[in-house]
Amino acid sequence: MSTTDHSLHPRATRTEHDLLGDREVPVDVYWGVHTLRAIENFPISGTPISSCTALIVALAQIKQAAAQTNHDLGLLDVRRCDAIVQACQEIIAGELHEQFVVDVIQGGAGTSTNMNANEVIANRALEILGAVRGDYATLHPNEHVNIGQSTNDVYPSALKIATWQGIQGLIVAMEELREAFAGKASEFDDVLKMGRTQLQDAVPMTLGQELRTYAVMIGEDQARLREASSLICELNLGATAIGTGITAHPAYAAQVITRLRDLTGIPLETAPDLVEATQDCGAFVQLSGVLKRVAVKLSKTCNDLRLLSSGPRAGLGEINLPARQAGSSIMPGKVNPVIPEVVNQVAFEVIGNDMTVTFAAEAGQLQLNAFEPIIAHSIHKSITHLGRACQVLARHCVRGITANREVMRASVENSIGIVTALNPYIGYANATSVAQEAFLTGGSVAAIVVERGLLTPAQLAEILRPEVLTRPHPMVSLNKD
Amino acid sequence: MSTTDHSLHPRATRTEHDLLGDREVPVDVYWGVHTLRAIENFPISGTPISSCTALIVALAQIKQAAAQTNHDLGLLDVRRCDAIVQACQEIIAGELHEQFVVDVIQGGAGTSTNMNANEVIANRALEILGAVRGDYATLHPNEHVNIGQSTNDVYPSALKIATWQGIQGLIVAMEELREAFAGKASEFDDVLKMGRTQLQDAVPMTLGQELRTYAVMIGEDQARLREASSLICELNLGATAIGTGITAHPAYAAQVITRLRDLTGIPLETAPDLVEATQDCGAFVQLSGVLKRVAVKLSKTCNDLRLLSSGPRAGLGEINLPARQAGSSIMPGKVNPVIPEVVNQVAFEVIGNDMTVTFAAEAGQLQLNAFEPIIAHSIHKSITHLGRACQVLARHCVRGITANREVMRASVENSIGIVTALNPYIGYANATSVAQEAFLTGGSVAAIVVERGLLTPAQLAEILRPEVLTRPHPMVSLNKD
Amino acid sequence: MSTTDHSLHPRATRTEHDLLGDREVPVDVYWGVHTLRAIENFPISGTPISSCTALIVALAQIKQAAAQTNHDLGLLDVRRCDAIVQACQEIIAGELHEQFVVDVIQGGAGTSTNMNANEVIANRALEILGAVRGDYATLHPNEHVNIGQSTNDVYPSALKIATWQGIQGLIVAMEELREAFAGKASEFDDVLKMGRTQLQDAVPMTLGQELRTYAVMIGEDQARLREASSLICELNLGATAIGTGITAHPAYAAQVITRLRDLTGIPLETAPDLVEATQDCGAFVQLSGVLKRVAVKLSKTCNDLRLLSSGPRAGLGEINLPARQAGSSIMPGKVNPVIPEVVNQVAFEVIGNDMTVTFAAEAGQLQLNAFEPIIAHSIHKSITHLGRACQVLARHCVRGITANREVMRASVENSIGIVTALNPYIGYANATSVAQEAFLTGGSVAAIVVERGLLTPAQLAEILRPEVLTRPHPMVSLNKD
Amino acid sequence: MSTTDHSLHPRATRTEHDLLGDREVPVDVYWGVHTLRAIENFPISGTPISSCTALIVALAQIKQAAAQTNHDLGLLDVRRCDAIVQACQEIIAGELHEQFVVDVIQGGAGTSTNMNANEVIANRALEILGAVRGDYATLHPNEHVNIGQSTNDVYPSALKIATWQGIQGLIVAMEELREAFAGKASEFDDVLKMGRTQLQDAVPMTLGQELRTYAVMIGEDQARLREASSLICELNLGATAIGTGITAHPAYAAQVITRLRDLTGIPLETAPDLVEATQDCGAFVQLSGVLKRVAVKLSKTCNDLRLLSSGPRAGLGEINLPARQAGSSIMPGKVNPVIPEVVNQVAFEVIGNDMTVTFAAEAGQLQLNAFEPIIAHSIHKSITHLGRACQVLARHCVRGITANREVMRASVENSIGIVTALNPYIGYANATSVAQEAFLTGGSVAAIVVERGLLTPAQLAEILRPEVLTRPHPMVSLNKD
Repeated sequence: MSTTDHSLHPRATRTEHDLLGDREVPVDVYWGVHTLRAIENFPISGTPISSCTALIVALAQIKQAAAQTNHDLGLLDVRRCDAIVQACQEIIAGELHEQFVVDVIQGGAGTSTNMNANEVIANRALEILGAVRGDYATLHPNEHVNIGQSTNDVYPSALKIATWQGIQGLIVAMEELREAFAGKASEFDDVLKMGRTQLQDAVPMTLGQELRTYAVMIGEDQARLREASSLICELNLGATAIGTGITAHPAYAAQVITRLRDLTGIPLETAPDLVEATQDCGAFVQLSGVLKRVAVKLSKTCNDLRLLSSGPRAGLGEINLPARQAGSSIMPGKVNPVIPEVVNQVAFEVIGNDMTVTFAAEAGQLQLNAFEPIIAHSIHKSITHLGRACQVLARHCVRGITANREVMRASVENSIGIVTALNPYIGYANATSVAQEAFLTGGSVAAIVVERGLLTPAQLAEILRPEVLTRPHPMVSLNKD
Repeated sequence: MSTTDHSLHPRATRTEHDLLGDREVPVDVYWGVHTLRAIENFPISGTPISSCTALIVALAQIKQAAAQTNHDLGLLDVRRCDAIVQACQEIIAGELHEQFVVDVIQGGAGTSTNMNANEVIANRALEILGAVRGDYATLHPNEHVNIGQSTNDVYPSALKIATWQGIQGLIVAMEELREAFAGKASEFDDVLKMGRTQLQDAVPMTLGQELRTYAVMIGEDQARLREASSLICELNLGATAIGTGITAHPAYAAQVITRLRDLTGIPLETAPDLVEATQDCGAFVQLSGVLKRVAVKLSKTCNDLRLLSSGPRAGLGEINLPARQAGSSIMPGKVNPVIPEVVNQVAFEVIGNDMTVTFAAEAGQLQLNAFEPIIAHSIHKSITHLGRACQVLARHCVRGITANREVMRASVENSIGIVTALNPYIGYANATSVAQEAFLTGGSVAAIVVERGLLTPAQLAEILRPEVLTRPHPMVSLNKD
Repeated sequence: MSTTDHSLHPRATRTEHDLLGDREVPVDVYWGVHTLRAIENFPISGTPISSCTALIVALAQIKQAAAQTNHDLGLLDVRRCDAIVQACQEIIAGELHEQFVVDVIQGGAGTSTNMNANEVIANRALEILGAVRGDYATLHPNEHVNIGQSTNDVYPSALKIATWQGIQGLIVAMEELREAFAGKASEFDDVLKMGRTQLQDAVPMTLGQELRTYAVMIGEDQARLREASSLICELNLGATAIGTGITAHPAYAAQVITRLRDLTGIPLETAPDLVEATQDCGAFVQLSGVLKRVAVKLSKTCNDLRLLSSGPRAGLGEINLPARQAGSSIMPGKVNPVIPEVVNQVAFEVIGNDMTVTFAAEAGQLQLNAFEPIIAHSIHKSITHLGRACQVLARHCVRGITANREVMRASVENSIGIVTALNPYIGYANATSVAQEAFLTGGSVAAIVVERGLLTPAQLAEILRPEVLTRPHPMVSLNKD
Repeated sequence: MSTTDHSLHPRATRTEHDLLGDREVPVDVYWGVHTLRAIENFPISGTPISSCTALIVALAQIKQAAAQTNHDLGLLDVRRCDAIVQACQEIIAGELHEQFVVDVIQGGAGTSTNMNANEVIANRALEILGAVRGDYATLHPNEHVNIGQSTNDVYPSALKIATWQGIQGLIVAMEELREAFAGKASEFDDVLKMGRTQLQDAVPMTLGQELRTYAVMIGEDQARLREASSLICELNLGATAIGTGITAHPAYAAQVITRLRDLTGIPLETAPDLVEATQDCGAFVQLSGVLKRVAVKLSKTCNDLRLLSSGPRAGLGEINLPARQAGSSIMPGKVNPVIPEVVNQVAFEVIGNDMTVTFAAEAGQLQLNAFEPIIAHSIHKSITHLGRACQVLARHCVRGITANREVMRASVENSIGIVTALNPYIGYANATSVAQEAFLTGGSVAAIVVERGLLTPAQLAEILRPEVLTRPHPMVSLNKD
């Protein structure tokens, strides 16, 4: 097949026509005059829509389902229908993606993306029919490929299908990370350490408890993502221009969604109010908000990992992250937490993307939101980068974490915070006074308590057993010893 | 009861003590030395925590449930328990709220709020017991009121209960607005007008369809809020300092949640992993994201109302919003869309609040998020202001909307966009050519179509019937006339 | 003077009229029917505009300057002018502020604020003239107080003056903080410690260098604030409704700014293009962006303070922040960094406020931005809270910082990072190898270097002198010893 | 030269070594083991740092200046210096950019970018010296190319130089847009129309005044960008790891900046406090804030253009934007404002990028901000996309704007808003009454005024002359006629 080389060398062309007049289109491309206009109008990011494979596939799935539905309804003859369907299936199989060339940042509410699809499918179908590209009298991008459709229902529907697919991939990547944390948590369930609140020593816990937290958080985020992805299963196919279904056959909406559900394996449904569904970006705002939540918690997790592994000598030094690369061009032997750092940055990007989505959603007017392309691009980046970040974090960092058990053991023994465990036995006021003395003198809590005659060494030993310290426990019976 | 007047006049005081030393506290206040420290430390916003009534009530409910549970577990004698419970019930009934004086923006992860509550309850309970305020040997804010508790489980639990109550109120306000839009939609279901996409004339619809959209949107947002509010029913009571439950009786967590569920009537549950639940702000991030979604759509709705009512003569002028006040100090007779404008601004505030929540959530470290006070304050403002905005919009604007039927009727008759309806009959290419001629000559689509012999007047009339234009329709049978 | 008690008891009223009809206004208030409408229309935040004293004063200053200018231009007789001026001067002196009752969140682009001012000034002037409140035939809020003015020039001008005043106060508060850091930096200029990059031990520095950084940052932020505040000295007085100056005397703009400059002592200027100046919120966006910058750096500073003071035993423990309050309701003796924590939260609020400002600024349409009230409110909160946060941080935290000199000294001696200083003498490859051995064996860099014969102890001692380590230095001459 | 094809085919390799061990590097690439680690560690965005040409050039300029300075200081022999300088010059000339392969989103605070540069320069220099790639004993990436440097001073310095260059380009693009608006403003200076506030008809102005506003706004934004770009001329070269200049020659900082100033032609300076400059991202936050300001105003401008050109028949229809492409796949003849729409979306992206920058800046800790790579990437996108958006808007939209003079003329004649101009003659109360009658009856203001005997037709004609309406004007003398 042809290439999309936009070089300066003279190329053979064919003439195409739109409402602005005639234009020469390279003879070997599958896109047409509408795509050409868009290339000229939107030289913004340099990133073509083909960068999101799932979107191209979803467009082809919709076009295929539409053609078959229109054929069933008597609106498209079998010959043209078959050619369109075959063209769509080739695209679904991964071919011709390089023909989807319009910029991801585009005006026109996605019209250029839809027309790019219509044109590529029409021209490929023309080839299949034995006709030449551009012979739109035989098969027309609008009058045949686009029957019963509008950008305003096809484009958001394709975005939702592509996003749904992306979310499934993200959930898989998160599962890998969740399991990595859960595994480490089990490995370190016997490692006692000081918990910290507000960066101040608090009370003992295990390293297993600490790391399991991250696994639990990720599990909850997966559940939230599943909920949000169910919201984007509602499509407005059949809405056409503004939701009134103008030009669409009355049976079209119900039939096309059935076909598309079969084709994609996604539990798609027709939105209950198509006028509302056509203008509303709420599902994208919700989803982006959940992605922001994932990012916030992933960032917090990485902040913690960087903090716990700080050092090696003038930091907390409780855990070690696997060394991944030399950390400095000037400081020999320095190793940095580069994997959590890159994940933090992805999180910051996702939070920024959510702001872009928010602005774009708010800017919609009347019966349509013209700014869905930037919403789509932002969410696509968020999903993709978060997925890669989770994988990298699992594979290059979490799985290789090791514990400095001695450091943590010493910090518990040495801690003032264990005085909290004595509260029920000696009272808050006594405990406060012991803590203050320990702080000021550098002494140990245990020694001071015994010295003051508040508890015996044996009683203390009983109260401070790890299994007593790290979970709720009835008061220890302090018999005379 | 006493007042909280912080005047400069010499007041009688009592001496209280904390780990920093002795301090004089006005004799007539119910709060104590910990609250005094907080007043001095956090002179930021000037807004006391009592500004959120639901939070004060929730704190008292938790303290009551805790006292009763601790009594059941043999940790608190009946006399003290009864006094604490009575004090809590007074607060739940609306008394003593002016004693909750610490600033809504405070350091310490909510400790000052919790201690403010402990002190007020202890001192009121002392009175009930016939003792004097400050006689903590008899009944102590920490050693009795706070048994089995920590700020780190009490404070977020109280926030969640208060937020849950707030959300219910917001949903009620939204319902009022939803019904207002739905009512207007029914009123205008027969008013044909031009729909618009990208601010350009598109295809016909009814004003009823247009306004119903807003009702549908609000209904969906209500559903999302209900989902998000179910997430904040998970409490970490029993977690104490970091989730390990240190100092809490093993049976405490399960019993206190049952009591609290009964007391509040909210379907509260204990979080499955208390360490995770103690540090995680994900439920607040999620909820704030949904509030942002509500704001985005409310803002879009108000943008539309302002646009549709623009004029009176050089605007779209399709609808009239009720006049609420003179619109200008200089332009006589000018009336502005002041109600949608104030709602837009609330939406912008809510979006900003969500950013604050996002930052605060991301900044949590290790076993606790120290920044929950600003999260709580931000969400409280968002919920309260959104609720009032919905009410104001329903009562002072939507219910009084009137339609300029003549303007809308003429715009449809005069439109070029109706050519879309002819697509299936004359083809996209012919239709484009007709549209262009109409645009350039100022002529009517119908006249040009007839003139070109594409359709007969009778056929046109059939195709352009309102009920055909505004919903999906089978192709009209164009018999020879 | 009268009170603003809005109680339900029947009050004596006077009848006022506006384009919507007659309304009863309490006889004892200075505001009138326009303010009454606004009270009813905007029950949003409950915070009246009088919460920003500087705004009320600025409004009065503008009204005074306008009255005097209009008198000079022959448009206002001396008797009315004098009465208006006296009323304004009373307000400038702090009286009648409780009469400014409209909500800070209001629709109408500030019209209600301007009308509230016009009405209060008119009614007070009427009293001064010996007439009764409401006798607008004698002196009218619009026809006399508002001559040559519009909300659209008065309101943004008042906001800019009030904001300018606020910025000066903030700069003073920042200066207090800057000096506190600079003082501590000098105090600790001799304390050697490990610097850290990416939370990993890097190379030595002094605690003085570390703390001076914050003083320098604040100094730069002060400079940026001064620049941004110079941008808000450009007013659009004389623009009236949309910048064309309709109804204003041609000499008005130039004369009123001169009077106002004298009255305020601020270097105010008339914007070069009044149409642009009337619709553009760029100066507020810029200023809010600088406030966000201040917040970001203040937050980073507080993050560092919390990190450096983490412990007391399981943290970095390099510095101690002064204890300000008990840190926990459950953990005896725990002291938390509550002051930096509250400053962090103010920073998060300011960042959220900036987002609100951004949204509101973007939403302006055509000749006016209707959303200036929320811009004003957001910036006012940011400035006020940042100022208080700086003061609290200086007074309750920074000035009381103490250093754990022994901890820091030991960390340098014990560090691997000092190997960087040996780079020029033994090469990056050797240095890396030494660092790795030290890390793996727990040994000291110095011992390994000597053991390997790379340097003599005397050479090492020379290279590792503090004054060599903490500033650029020529290579030490390593003569044979 | 070699390619960077990372295919799966077996390639000849060379062995390189770092602190993690030996690795095989393709023999034909210029980068080495440190770059290889980064490729493996950061598979996030797929976008290599070479996507920002200016950054690669700036890195080479710094490395060249450093080599020459180190030679001058006797730290680098002439043979190695010359080879390094030649390699840098080749890169500055545009060669070898494809060798800069690390991802734009990377952990490690830019170390991988700096090492990628060190390795490419070293290996090219080795070729120049007649040695083979990887022969680091002859010329070493760290020990020779990186002398006196650290990632922590080189990387932010290179970012600032690259950003400065980007800003200049953006200012040029904005100038093209400014001139386009200024030209249109002059063209339409005689076209009277209604100005609008709050989307309601206000008072007359000219279309020239309206469009000139955008030119003035852009001019102010250019000034702000120039200010912000002056802040990024302060570099921390010589700071090395944390600002203390460890390993750098005392004369290095001063000499390298002089050389770099000459090499780049940019007025670069050494920051006054290098410790502060090394950790502070304030200049980037400030710059990003100004870019956000540009975006906000550009978005507002595009909103206005879309609004003014709404229609063609059911909108404001005052101006026409040039048709750029067919606007719909279903609505024949529809033309949409696709160019403003794409610019709006760029603005939303820039606002999101600013949020990312804010988060990343706040997250810096102690002596370094590890998140500069995402700051750099975000600002680079903002600058580049804004520049392209300005060009596209100027060329494909603004220059082709035409005016519907008849529509605007009629709207003024027909307007109620002109009653404002009569205020000074008939009073606010009379004017309000006239406006109300006109609104209710549909009548003309002029007719009602004459009918009521408030003014004569001749007086009215005098007051309503365009030149009187659209700028400040003394009261017209209303002699008896």
